[in-house]
Amino acid sequence: MDDLGKEMHRLCGELFPICRSITGNGVRKTLCLLKDHLPELKIYEIPTGEVCFDWNIPKEWNIRDAYVIDPEGNKIIDFQNSNLHVVGYSIPVNKTATLEELQEHLYSLPDQPTAIPYITSYYEERWGFCISEKQRRHLKPGKYHVYIDSDLSNGSLTYGELILQGHSEKEVFLSTYICHPSLANNELSGPVVTTFIAEWLAALKDRRFTYRIIFIPEGIGSIAYLSRHMEIMKQRVIAGFNVTCIGDDRSYSYLPSRNGNTLSDQVALHVMKHLHPDYVAYTYLDRGSDERQYCSPGVDLPVSSIMRSKYGEYPEYHTSLDDLHLITPSGLRGGYEVLLRCIHCIEQNETLKLTVLCEPQLGKRGLYPTLSTKESRKQVMDMMNLIAYSDGKHSLLDIADKIGVPMWNLCHVVDRLKAHNLLAAVE
Amino acid sequence: MDDLGKEMHRLCGELFPICRSITGNGVRKTLCLLKDHLPELKIYEIPTGEVCFDWNIPKEWNIRDAYVIDPEGNKIIDFQNSNLHVVGYSIPVNKTATLEELQEHLYSLPDQPTAIPYITSYYEERWGFCISEKQRRHLKPGKYHVYIDSDLSNGSLTYGELILQGHSEKEVFLSTYICHPSLANNELSGPVVTTFIAEWLAALKDRRFTYRIIFIPEGIGSIAYLSRHMEIMKQRVIAGFNVTCIGDDRSYSYLPSRNGNTLSDQVALHVMKHLHPDYVAYTYLDRGSDERQYCSPGVDLPVSSIMRSKYGEYPEYHTSLDDLHLITPSGLRGGYEVLLRCIHCIEQNETLKLTVLCEPQLGKRGLYPTLSTKESRKQVMDMMNLIAYSDGKHSLLDIADKIGVPMWNLCHVVDRLKAHNLLAAVE
Amino acid sequence: MDDLGKEMHRLCGELFPICRSITGNGVRKTLCLLKDHLPELKIYEIPTGEVCFDWNIPKEWNIRDAYVIDPEGNKIIDFQNSNLHVVGYSIPVNKTATLEELQEHLYSLPDQPTAIPYITSYYEERWGFCISEKQRRHLKPGKYHVYIDSDLSNGSLTYGELILQGHSEKEVFLSTYICHPSLANNELSGPVVTTFIAEWLAALKDRRFTYRIIFIPEGIGSIAYLSRHMEIMKQRVIAGFNVTCIGDDRSYSYLPSRNGNTLSDQVALHVMKHLHPDYVAYTYLDRGSDERQYCSPGVDLPVSSIMRSKYGEYPEYHTSLDDLHLITPSGLRGGYEVLLRCIHCIEQNETLKLTVLCEPQLGKRGLYPTLSTKESRKQVMDMMNLIAYSDGKHSLLDIADKIGVPMWNLCHVVDRLKAHNLLAAVE
Repeated sequence: MDDLGKEMHRLCGELFPICRSITGNGVRKTLCLLKDHLPELKIYEIPTGEVCFDWNIPKEWNIRDAYVIDPEGNKIIDFQNSNLHVVGYSIPVNKTATLEELQEHLYSLPDQPTAIPYITSYYEERWGFCISEKQRRHLKPGKYHVYIDSDLSNGSLTYGELILQGHSEKEVFLSTYICHPSLANNELSGPVVTTFIAEWLAALKDRRFTYRIIFIPEGIGSIAYLSRHMEIMKQRVIAGFNVTCIGDDRSYSYLPSRNGNTLSDQVALHVMKHLHPDYVAYTYLDRGSDERQYCSPGVDLPVSSIMRSKYGEYPEYHTSLDDLHLITPSGLRGGYEVLLRCIHCIEQNETLKLTVLCEPQLGKRGLYPTLSTKESRKQVMDMMNLIAYSDGKHSLLDIADKIGVPMWNLCHVVDRLKAHNLLAAVE
Repeated sequence: MDDLGKEMHRLCGELFPICRSITGNGVRKTLCLLKDHLPELKIYEIPTGEVCFDWNIPKEWNIRDAYVIDPEGNKIIDFQNSNLHVVGYSIPVNKTATLEELQEHLYSLPDQPTAIPYITSYYEERWGFCISEKQRRHLKPGKYHVYIDSDLSNGSLTYGELILQGHSEKEVFLSTYICHPSLANNELSGPVVTTFIAEWLAALKDRRFTYRIIFIPEGIGSIAYLSRHMEIMKQRVIAGFNVTCIGDDRSYSYLPSRNGNTLSDQVALHVMKHLHPDYVAYTYLDRGSDERQYCSPGVDLPVSSIMRSKYGEYPEYHTSLDDLHLITPSGLRGGYEVLLRCIHCIEQNETLKLTVLCEPQLGKRGLYPTLSTKESRKQVMDMMNLIAYSDGKHSLLDIADKIGVPMWNLCHVVDRLKAHNLLAAVE
Repeated sequence: MDDLGKEMHRLCGELFPICRSITGNGVRKTLCLLKDHLPELKIYEIPTGEVCFDWNIPKEWNIRDAYVIDPEGNKIIDFQNSNLHVVGYSIPVNKTATLEELQEHLYSLPDQPTAIPYITSYYEERWGFCISEKQRRHLKPGKYHVYIDSDLSNGSLTYGELILQGHSEKEVFLSTYICHPSLANNELSGPVVTTFIAEWLAALKDRRFTYRIIFIPEGIGSIAYLSRHMEIMKQRVIAGFNVTCIGDDRSYSYLPSRNGNTLSDQVALHVMKHLHPDYVAYTYLDRGSDERQYCSPGVDLPVSSIMRSKYGEYPEYHTSLDDLHLITPSGLRGGYEVLLRCIHCIEQNETLKLTVLCEPQLGKRGLYPTLSTKESRKQVMDMMNLIAYSDGKHSLLDIADKIGVPMWNLCHVVDRLKAHNLLAAVE
């Protein structure tokens, strides 16, 4: 039954070893693997230096190897074992250093002594190594050999984009990021769940809306993408989700758009309330991912976030403990289901109007259940309530919220009432 | 003191034995008795088959007699004892049946073994008898003679309408139903309280608003009435009440209009809050009477319900236990008082504007009480608060809600301030 | 450190002995002393009889001396000891009276036996003396000599006005009253704190807004002032405060404008919430000072009240116990600080708009703190939140409310972001 969860976890495993950053070959390799699932994924490169609003595309960073050899000749830190060992965007180095000198370039976490922290320095050139506090405590005085074989030079920023055309040019937008090295919940869960959602969408023979799905480096990637596509997106996007931290098994959570009143907020809250009523509700003040750009003043796209354990809120975040054990098939599957349900709701949401005055006569149309059970009485009540609020002003989602039932319980009833010409969609 | 309550209860007693249904002579007899109180009541007939929105007027049903004779020759079920014994709209039958055959046509309530249930089958032709579970358990095997002398044929649906002209053509609408046989709270309390309210209104020499008061069969009656009068009602009706279940002594309750924001909602809530703060507040999802039609999309009349124990919410509902003992003189009187108070509030509600800038000098006009008591200080405070909010935007009811006093405590003050030309009504 | 509080208390001491009323030389002497602090204060006289909306300027009242001599020749009540002893607006009297006759002209407080009450009779001509209940109980039968050397005749009502021109003709309005005799919290705290605020404002070299500051008799004074200036004030005043009861040490309190939604409400609530979260929130139904006129229908100025212990709500109110011991240097200073903070907020409030799309790159401008501490992280978060809501629709005060920080913590950040052309004020 959870084959889908296992498949997603397997893809996370494939992507895990790749050393991603905001630019470089790690991003390209990642997109290449995702393209196996999404053949129509288009890959774009934006050259270093290109102006994107207030920003410029940074230099491209690539790394081949890195290590530290201790005074006794042991390779005690090795990039080949974990790409977290090197501070992201480290410049090349190849020299001997005393322990004191080395210490100035080491990063560890006194409170989490077994974890390697994840550190980057995108906008200031430096080099450094990340190690566990436990290992750091055992370092002995002496001469160390430090080596980083990286380069930081003009190149480009890489991202992937998949447009799935629908009947309407109105768009649903999904954004996820591919810029962290070996981290699982706060990296791979996002692109992997998004890939599987995209596969499902691509296979649909009938899409009401067009889907714009992007795989970008966080921060600069969303800024760069907006600088190229904002105007068209402002006209077309009716709802969007930033897909991140969606693979562990602990909580469900939701972070609203800036004003909290968009369709993607309404649908996320509706789905969470009915499927996972114990979800954690954050505010926009808790934001920290690409909604910072999508919801910024003047951009104002309707983007909210549906997550499992949110970035910054779980102890393994941004450490080597955020690994393939933290995310699970059922965790990924749960995130996938919630996002899929949101998309279903958006696809089926419409403003409804009763075509007759007063209550219609349902009996003569055979619209009452023939057997009266507790279940069938509930169905009749839902049908009558749906009819009572189909006034050409409430959307199906509004009505579902108003009458306190999941929207998906009403879709079948809507179809039957439409088939009898009792309900009509209005625009 | 409670002569009025007793008179209302006496009229309920007169109406109780009549076998009403949604059509037929029971309705005519009922209206005939009410016309003794309301000579200007007009009685209308709508022929079987006439189209009313999505519905057609059904065949007319009349019944003269019905009984069941047991194998020993005893008349064990007799329509003459209780008209609840026959399923409403039963087709005629006159035959011998085994107990097994008979059982398929019997209705009883296992949970309320002494009660005869009230059952109808308006839209599917069948016959049946209703008996107490207790009696049913004693039925012995053998041949029974079943007899129903009814007919179901083309005829008409009957309703009564009383229009009491006021200074304004704007209308207050009262609707009550007359379609249940011997049931007291969920039938007779409504038309009887409405009749006494109508008598009081008819005797008024000065009515600000016009009153449209109708006595109809529930459901099809309100649909039929709307199909003939909806357009004019949408232009004129400013507030309306569905009068039902208003005769027992237990609770007071309120059910809002669809959007809950009409004048009839505001006034009902105001009256309930001040007179019966322990009233039960239902939502529109709890609806179940003619507000289903009056508040339906596109009809949207401002109709709420003021009740005592609401239909469906008390154990005797739709059984022989909803009889003349369940309703009481004080119960009916309490319902009458609440409805009357609502009408008073509507009649006296207007938007007020202070005619001077700053607070007026009340002393020089003798508008301060000459004796300072706790009571008089409260009166001055109410007067000053009334003045403070008479800004041409708040109605008197808005002001009463805002300053937390019953609207009727302010009417005398309004009159005095108007007499001194300090307040004026605005339109 | 509390020199300012002491100076304010000293000025209260100077003003305390003066016998003020709604007209007369007491008001003139008071304004004369305030003019020492505010040389630009203009003093106006409105003649008796002038029509002010629904009112007329009353006769002017002046008193020189008053006493009661008991049967044994002792001067037992002496205006020279306390000006509270004489009922305000008492007409002259000079006669012998029995104790019984005298009793009809005496006022005392049975519940506060040591306090002399403060009583006036502006609109009905009478004479009377106020004494402590304790003293009254010892009065012996016999002949008393009562003497009041007052006159009540045509003259004028006196008030002071200070206009401090700002860059904008939009105005901030401060109103305080000078019409009570020797009372401290419910009189002198208001004009004294207002005077010190005005001194501070006058010394500012840069005022964004114009300040309209008035010292008036309560009630008739505000009505008279509005009758002359209402139209211009309605065009110009963006926020105003009625300054009263602002000198004791017990509580802080706030009373809203009529609709509670003006800038002066928002700023008062913001300041109270952050500086004195235990403040007492009154409603407009608790009003009792000149907001009764400023917020009356058709006048509708944006005036709220910031107070310490509110009139009518503390036991010493309107008695001789409301003296120079009740108000304190720290009490006056606290009130001054709150009012000053409100003015600061108004001066610095503006609607802000981010000049770039997406988040700006703060690093390249050196806008991130170089040292990462808990404090600096909070500063960055505040800066990012400020940026996130600078959408051209929210004022700085709105943003401060939204992100839950005092507005004054954001002003420095606003200045820095403006200096880098990242934020701009919009109109």
